[in-house]
Amino acid sequence: MISFFFDPRSIAVIGATNNPKKFGNAVTINILQNRNISKDIFLVSRSSREISGLKCYKSILDIPREIDIAIILVPAQYIDEVIDQCIEKRVKGIIIITAGFGEINEEGKKKELEIVKKCKKAGIRVMGPNCVGIQNLDIGLNASFIQTAPPGKIGMISQSGSFGCASFYAMEREDIGCSKFANIGNGVDVSFDEILDFFNNDLITEIVCIYVETIDNGRVFLDSLRKILPKKPVIILKGGRTRYGMKAASSHTGSMATNYKMLKSSIKQAGAVLCENVTDFVNSLKTFSFLPIPMGERIGVLTNSGGSSVLFSDKAEEFGLHLTEFSEKLKERVSSYLIPLVKLENPLDMIGVADEKTYYNITKLMLEDSEIDIVVACVVIPPFLEMKSSEHYKGIIQAWNDTGRRKPLIPLIMFGDQFKDLRELSKKEKSTIFFTPHDAAYAIKLLTERCK
Amino acid sequence: MISFFFDPRSIAVIGATNNPKKFGNAVTINILQNRNISKDIFLVSRSSREISGLKCYKSILDIPREIDIAIILVPAQYIDEVIDQCIEKRVKGIIIITAGFGEINEEGKKKELEIVKKCKKAGIRVMGPNCVGIQNLDIGLNASFIQTAPPGKIGMISQSGSFGCASFYAMEREDIGCSKFANIGNGVDVSFDEILDFFNNDLITEIVCIYVETIDNGRVFLDSLRKILPKKPVIILKGGRTRYGMKAASSHTGSMATNYKMLKSSIKQAGAVLCENVTDFVNSLKTFSFLPIPMGERIGVLTNSGGSSVLFSDKAEEFGLHLTEFSEKLKERVSSYLIPLVKLENPLDMIGVADEKTYYNITKLMLEDSEIDIVVACVVIPPFLEMKSSEHYKGIIQAWNDTGRRKPLIPLIMFGDQFKDLRELSKKEKSTIFFTPHDAAYAIKLLTERCK
Repeated sequence: MISFFFDPRSIAVIGATNNPKKFGNAVTINILQNRNISKDIFLVSRSSREISGLKCYKSILDIPREIDIAIILVPAQYIDEVIDQCIEKRVKGIIIITAGFGEINEEGKKKELEIVKKCKKAGIRVMGPNCVGIQNLDIGLNASFIQTAPPGKIGMISQSGSFGCASFYAMEREDIGCSKFANIGNGVDVSFDEILDFFNNDLITEIVCIYVETIDNGRVFLDSLRKILPKKPVIILKGGRTRYGMKAASSHTGSMATNYKMLKSSIKQAGAVLCENVTDFVNSLKTFSFLPIPMGERIGVLTNSGGSSVLFSDKAEEFGLHLTEFSEKLKERVSSYLIPLVKLENPLDMIGVADEKTYYNITKLMLEDSEIDIVVACVVIPPFLEMKSSEHYKGIIQAWNDTGRRKPLIPLIMFGDQFKDLRELSKKEKSTIFFTPHDAAYAIKLLTERCK
Repeated sequence: MISFFFDPRSIAVIGATNNPKKFGNAVTINILQNRNISKDIFLVSRSSREISGLKCYKSILDIPREIDIAIILVPAQYIDEVIDQCIEKRVKGIIIITAGFGEINEEGKKKELEIVKKCKKAGIRVMGPNCVGIQNLDIGLNASFIQTAPPGKIGMISQSGSFGCASFYAMEREDIGCSKFANIGNGVDVSFDEILDFFNNDLITEIVCIYVETIDNGRVFLDSLRKILPKKPVIILKGGRTRYGMKAASSHTGSMATNYKMLKSSIKQAGAVLCENVTDFVNSLKTFSFLPIPMGERIGVLTNSGGSSVLFSDKAEEFGLHLTEFSEKLKERVSSYLIPLVKLENPLDMIGVADEKTYYNITKLMLEDSEIDIVVACVVIPPFLEMKSSEHYKGIIQAWNDTGRRKPLIPLIMFGDQFKDLRELSKKEKSTIFFTPHDAAYAIKLLTERCK
């Protein structure tokens, strides 16, 4: 059990400092920003007597309380002393943020294994070294030196701290966020599978994502993956898929080469989402954060722009999706809302005159149609006929709301990402938008794979 | 020669109106917005006597001047009469914006061919029908019903008007823009190759892009393509690559199936860029708008984030790029600016402490290195150590400026697209930013292909 890392009763920051140019300060500030959490925070510092009004201790041994987790930020040359003190203090877990171990050279690799061995003997679990720390957004705990993730329902494990940090920027943009975040750095003890098991039982985590460079024990990892997948989607991005990538990864986290082809087929067989790039990775998180799993694969498309529905149709076929034939009943129903120029085919090209009302009516009819499982509403925002830039989206979402959001609705607004009113509206409606045909089709592929 | 379409001495808008809910109003407003252009604009309207202070004529025949191009917006049932008047008036070219022809049914196809035949006999060229119009940004002419494109050096031909419109949103975002824009809609007369030839000779157009659904005369098109490619890069996106896509395209512009595989290989052989999605399409335009062609293929990478350089390295290999080995001389030079933890390898991971100065110094040393042709500067914006979100980019661009911008410099700022200060700085510096490893590697692939 590693849950105490995410929900510790007490935390010691060893290497806290008043110097804003040090990571020990960044972690301290982040942790103290959430003093309202019912945790006891203790600071250990050689240089400072007090930080933000909180007393500093010279050593963890001076702290008059039991400590669940110790976060270590002291330079590598002091690590042995500090680890010994943590053992003496009988902490439950240690997060070693300090870098300069296995990612540097063989000597460092030896060193970090030695530390783990020592801690294991004392019954202490270790995260890191060379990591940014962990976060538990559900209780407002940021025990890392990166920014606090936007809160949400994604449990994230990242072997790279900075990739975690960058992902938070993307999550912010997409109005999605984390329940928990862990960066395992060199990953010498606590492993992906243990955190996966923890996320499996965590009630707030509904989606799991992983950035991984190397997996030490593939079999155990896959076992945990198979256990969680029936309950929660897992999205994986693997760094070091190629020779160049593996070489870079070995400098980064001291990773050993992992056979990507083998890993890929096992992961896909298990039913996880394996992304080949960061755009698909974020898109996957967005998809599962906002859209329900469909009951079937039949897609209906409406559009005000022939070009965008042509491009979507291409992507749909490339992803093996299924554009359905409209029933005669549906054709008859939609025709009463459309001008005679419109051909009653899927995709339904309502041309540039289609306004909010048209979008509302047609989206609703498609959502209500028993022979359609997924609705894609394409829009190119019209700069003419006095149309408002968000009116089509408004119509679409209204139709989704009025039909109980039971089917996945994919708003595909071509290059609409710079329209602030759209972003605000989607935030307000707790809905989402896709901005390219690829992203929309990819989202549907993920959803239909989960419904199989 | 079709240059008079883009640089007419006089224009008549047939079907102008005061009603803001009609396309005839949108075109009129757009054209009149640029009254300072030394063109004569005449309006023909049945319903209005005056629009924005400009007198309306009942018929083109009433206009007391020669007319170079007539833009037709009257409903399809009045088209014959209006065409006959244009012939009588001896206009040089006609842009038929009116829809409801070949894209609708066989009858419409017959009709549009009839019109072309009639016009050809009279020596009149035709664009459209079913198009949004044309723009010549160099003289501030927007003869279309969509928004004015941001001005720039891209000549764009789009078979879909709305895709043009959507592309303008993306161009705006990327601070790039058009010299000329033409939407040929059903494309019954003026063809891609003719516009390509025109762009070939146009001094302001430095980059050409095409959205195409069908090409009627592939051989002629490829001839024009081969002629322009040694001078200007051409970026092509084909809608209707698949069965679904072709079906949608046939409703859209009445397109016939084009064998994509054959077209693909011919286009690639000719040396044009063929994109498989809209993101790559915009990325290509951005790449050629901002970056010089490299002298070779050797890439040097610096980063503050191991994860992002691992992900970039994977993409580099996937795109067949060449990460070079650093020379001993370069290693020695860079080492004086770096902390001892840093491994002197490519990618050069300077870890999270690297600041503006570090980025400046290392980027400059790589740009100056005779064994490096292309520099990739990866950044994950650090939310710690009091760093500013744009400081790394500042250092990078300063180094690029100080070395005369001779080599392509690729700033890869992971998910940094929401940082306003970055966007503003890149705009001010007339530089650009890539936000994902895919986009950065793809850009380099395009550039190195041009240098072969």
